[in-house]
Formats: sequence, C-alpha cells, structure tokens
Amino acid sequence: MTKKIAVLPGDGIGPEIMAEAVKVLQALDLPLTLEWADVGGKAYENSGHPLPPATLKLAQEADAVLFGAVGDWKYDKLERALRPEQAILGLRKALGLFANFRPAICYEQLTHASSLKPELVAGLDILIIRELTGDIYFGQPRGRRTAVDGHFPGAEEAFDTMRYSRPEIERIAHVAFQAARKRNKKVTSVDKANVLETFQFWKDVVTEVHKDYPDVELDHMYVDNAAMQLVKAPKKFDVVVTGNMFGDILSDEAAMLTGSIGMLPSASLDVNNKGLYEPSHGSAPDIAGKGIANPLATILSAAMMLKFSLNLPYAAARIEAAVQSVLAQGLRTADIWSEGTSKVSTVEMGDAVVKAITTTKTIKS
Amino acid sequence: MTKKIAVLPGDGIGPEIMAEAVKVLQALDLPLTLEWADVGGKAYENSGHPLPPATLKLAQEADAVLFGAVGDWKYDKLERALRPEQAILGLRKALGLFANFRPAICYEQLTHASSLKPELVAGLDILIIRELTGDIYFGQPRGRRTAVDGHFPGAEEAFDTMRYSRPEIERIAHVAFQAARKRNKKVTSVDKANVLETFQFWKDVVTEVHKDYPDVELDHMYVDNAAMQLVKAPKKFDVVVTGNMFGDILSDEAAMLTGSIGMLPSASLDVNNKGLYEPSHGSAPDIAGKGIANPLATILSAAMMLKFSLNLPYAAARIEAAVQSVLAQGLRTADIWSEGTSKVSTVEMGDAVVKAITTTKTIKS
Ligand SMILES: [Mg+2]
Ligand SMILES: [Mg+2]
Repeated sequence: MTKKIAVLPGDGIGPEIMAEAVKVLQALDLPLTLEWADVGGKAYENSGHPLPPATLKLAQEADAVLFGAVGDWKYDKLERALRPEQAILGLRKALGLFANFRPAICYEQLTHASSLKPELVAGLDILIIRELTGDIYFGQPRGRRTAVDGHFPGAEEAFDTMRYSRPEIERIAHVAFQAARKRNKKVTSVDKANVLETFQFWKDVVTEVHKDYPDVELDHMYVDNAAMQLVKAPKKFDVVVTGNMFGDILSDEAAMLTGSIGMLPSASLDVNNKGLYEPSHGSAPDIAGKGIANPLATILSAAMMLKFSLNLPYAAARIEAAVQSVLAQGLRTADIWSEGTSKVSTVEMGDAVVKAITTTKTIKS
Repeated sequence: MTKKIAVLPGDGIGPEIMAEAVKVLQALDLPLTLEWADVGGKAYENSGHPLPPATLKLAQEADAVLFGAVGDWKYDKLERALRPEQAILGLRKALGLFANFRPAICYEQLTHASSLKPELVAGLDILIIRELTGDIYFGQPRGRRTAVDGHFPGAEEAFDTMRYSRPEIERIAHVAFQAARKRNKKVTSVDKANVLETFQFWKDVVTEVHKDYPDVELDHMYVDNAAMQLVKAPKKFDVVVTGNMFGDILSDEAAMLTGSIGMLPSASLDVNNKGLYEPSHGSAPDIAGKGIANPLATILSAAMMLKFSLNLPYAAARIEAAVQSVLAQGLRTADIWSEGTSKVSTVEMGDAVVKAITTTKTIKS
C-alpha cells in the first residue's frame, strides 16, 4: 500500500521550497516512498534535456508528482524545445493532465496584502478549474501564410485554431461538478458563447453534463464579465470552470487578488486523479539560494496531493491546519511579512509547520 | 465648415443620457448640425431592423456618430440578426471602425468607489486601445464538425480561427504610438507570443512599427500577466494596445478597477479618425425612464468626439473641466453617490455640467 511520489525540485528556489515540503510529508509518517529526479534547467545541464527519459519514467510510475519550479534567465537563449518550461508541458502531455485546479484563497492574516479592500477579500476561497490540454493553446492548424480573404487578402498573416471536442468538455465539466459537490455546490462556467462557436458548444455541453448533477447550481458568465466580477465581488464565485486560455487569464487574475501568490498551491489531474502538484508561483531565480523563499505554496501543494491523488484527506487537513497555525503565530517569510509579524527564513517556516503538525498530533493521540 | 453629427440614442437609458449630452454640446455654441435616428430595439420596433438603411446612411454621411446604448431583455427572443446589439456591430463594420479607445480613469472624488485600495487607483489614467474588427471574433472558418485529429478523433467539435494580417496590426500599432505621443509616450503591447502564432506575429509587427516612433517607449506583456498587473499596480500602465479578444477582457477589467463605469466614455475610430462615441456602460433597462441614470459617460464621449473626430480639443477640454467641476461641487447621480454628497437626477446632472461650462465661458471671455 506504500505510494510512490516523484519529487522534482527543479530550478531557482525549487530545491529550497521542496526540501521544506518533503520535511512536512516526512513528519506525517505516511506510507509514502519519495524518489527524486532532475527537471528543467538542472536536468538540461546534467543530461541535455529539461525532461530526461529517467525523469519521465519516474513520473509515469509514481502515484503522484510533487513539482517545485523550473526556469532561469540563463536558459532564455536555448532553442524552445530545450527550455526548462518544456518540462512541465511535456509532463502534462505525457501524463494526460487535463484538469488544472487553481485555488485562490485569501488567508485571514494576509488580507491586508491584497490590492482589494479587506472586506472584499477576507475569507475569499475560489477554485478555478482550467482545462489544460486543449483549446487554442494546442489547436492545429496554426502558423503563417498569405491571407486569401479577410480585410487584407494577399497580405501576410498568422493564425491559430481554437477547438474543443465534446468529450474534452464533458470530462472537465464532470471534474468541476464533482469538485463543487465537495464544496458549496455552485459552479460558474465561463465562456464567450455570444461570439465564439467553440464556447457556444462549451456552454451547450456543460449544460448537458449538468443534468447529472441536479444538486449543483450552475451559472454561465462571459469571460469579459468574469474578469470584471472578479475585481468587483470575488467572493460571489465558488467553483469556476473554463477553457485553457480563459483559465490562464482568470486564474492569474484571481491569484493576484489574494495579494499573496507565495501561498497558492495548484494541481493538474488526469482522468484517474493522478496528478502533478506545484506552487502557483515561479522559480524566482533572483532570490534563489538566499533562504528567503516562501515554502508554504509547495507545502500546501503537498496537502492537495494527499487529498486528490492519495486519498489521505485527514493528513491533508493536518498540513492545512498547521499552515493556519504558523500564520496565527505571526510567522512570515519576506514576501508576506508586514509590520508587527516575525520574519522567518524558508527553513524556519518549514520547521514551524513541522512543529505545528507534531504538536497537534501529540494532543490528538 | 459646419460638421454633421449623427445622434443615435437607442434603448433603455439611451434617450435620457443622450438628451443631456446634446444639451452640453448645444451649450458650447459650436458649428455642429445634429441629426437624430432610431437604432437598436427602438429601430426594430419602428422599422423592423436594429440598423435601418436610413440610420446607416445618416451615420455614413455624418462626420461623427454619438451613440447612446442598445438592448433590452424584451428582445432576447429575436433571432440573432435582429437583436439590438447587431446595430453596433453593423455600424463598426460599415464604417470600418477598427480602433477602440477605452479610457479607464479614476476621478479623485470617486476613488473610494473602487474595489482597490485608494492609493492604488487615485489618479489612475489608462488608455486601452483594442483592435475591433479582426482576431478570433471575426476569423473564418468557424463552426461545428467531426474532429479528424486532436485528443478525440471522430468526436463532435466546435472551432474558431484566430488571425491577424500584417496591415491590421500595423494600423492599430500606429494608432497606439500616435496616441502615446499625446500622452506619456509609453505603450504596453499585450500578447501571448509564448503560445500563439498570431500573437508572436503581433509582437513582431508592433516591434517593427515602433521603429517609426523612437520617442515612444514600448514594452510587451503576456495577457495573463497583464490581467494580474492591472490588479496589482494599475498606475504602471499608460497606453495599452492589444487584439480584439484580449482587449475585450482587459478593457472591462480596467474599467471595473475604477469602480465607476458610469463615468467612462469610449470611441471607435476609422483610418481617418471618423468615429463612433458611446458610454462604456450599457442600456440598463432596469432603470430606464426613472431619470436616475448617470449621463457623464455620454457627455465625456461627446468630449472625445470633439477631440478625436472634429478637431475641437479646446471645446473638449471645456466639457472635461465642467465634469471635474460638478464632481468637485459634490453632485452625484445614484450610481456614484456616497455619504456626504448630493444626489441629483440625470437632468440635474446635465444642467449642472451646462452651468459649469457657461460659467467658465463667462469668466474666460
Ligand atoms: Mg498564466
Ligand atoms: Mg466586453
């Protein structure tokens, strides 16, 4: 019954934040085997490719992947196929990770860090579910050509294809409705049905799938209106489901509303709830090696992993409670520090979470 | 030298807000001839089409179009081609209005109405320039079919085509750089060049056009990052130029940042700066006929018309100063009212702007 976790720290602050997440997992005494592998720029340097065969094999064999971050300016001159970012795209594709979970949670103690007025974000808890393997980001054909019609026939033009098939929409809709059942039974499907054929179809199919979930409330919103309502009244949202491109834009906007991206985990799941878990923030090469990065998004990603892929919700809840506890104690890494709180290092934050977990455990046992 | 203005009040609150804008224009004593025509649901009721031939002819002959708002729930059951919204799409197409100007301005007295903390929006003055006749909103082919490849070959799918030709990008880039010259000489071009062929081309062409404007600073930003930065630090933007779809999303997000959409005008221009001017808000049928709508966005749209299409910048500045003056006097329609200010009706607000213009005129003459 021991589950295998592929641990891929990556570049920049990746190794530092991953070390803390691993410490937290180990403190829980769960039947897990952790196996490490290179990924991203580190992997390119050691073996010539950002996603080497051994890393991919480990990820495929594992029950879940815990991912740090990839990327560094020093790899910007590499050809596109060898850049660190290709590792995450390759993993999504090879593992069939079509459902991206992007929570936007505003922790009570960090409400002031938001750009928004405190009353608008206090207690914010949105889950954006973004379809991750289709839409215009992958649609073929695409390229450059000479226009044969349009406003300027004969001119040079570039083009891309937006497309979604019925099964692609059905499976992400099921994911959203099932996630909503575990929350407040409310889904907002974001489209642009008034203008785009693809998203009229999206709306039609989501509406059909909804018939299987009569207990869940569904509403539909145009993407431009959703971008507005996130600013105006974000707490009106609960689960949001949308396509790859709209999800890219809205999940980042929602994350920024919280004011503390260093706190936000994410998950990318396949049809069997096997998944890749990573912080929403990047590799931050500017602060790498300084011991000041915030490990909480990675620690919370490990909690999501326990909940979604390993069916250990109680262990996940213990991590989440420990994170709440360290925030309540006033401990803050530099990115979330404010007057009157205690600034701690990456390692000190990880240690504090471990201590909070151990203390809780002792009390309960 | 008399210029002809097509005045198209439309539906909902359209006639009420237009009446005030007309009063303001008349108070300026300019060499203008105003001619009225039906548009939208009103036109459909009177002559069977939301954009009747007589209205289109007037708009084509006029030097500029001042547009109120169209749409009402009661037309929702009409076939798409007869719905009020088709009037604005038809006018954009017939008049070749490819450059949409969407200012997002946060007036000092209304700073508190924003969702954002006051210090982040006080003095905000962004100009979003959205390409309006191309991109995936118009690209052919589009429709439904059976997928021949992709994740589910053989499945039903829907698709759309994103496309931009070189001349389409060039002309909107010129518009943006020229607009920036009249402001702070800073343009942010928003794309998704890392993923989309269309927007790598967009970035390349904007970069080429920039060579003609060495005095203007240009930077490039991905659309998901732009959606974040608008929330985090909106005042870092000045002129933003982007495609039709990204512009649709970002201009609405930026408008909502100000917290007072009832204040925001817009313009849609052709290659010769002939344009259509309209408030950014809609027809608000729920408050139509109550005399409480805010006419300032329409009044400020008239000011934009004087500046961009009629080359009367001094007259435009007089309107803008008069609007500042009524705000400074504490006059507010219901949508922008707050404790300690005086609630006024649509007509009273229009009268106050006229009075402010007349007073200023007397002092200056
Ligand atoms: Mg993104
Ligand atoms: Mg819009």
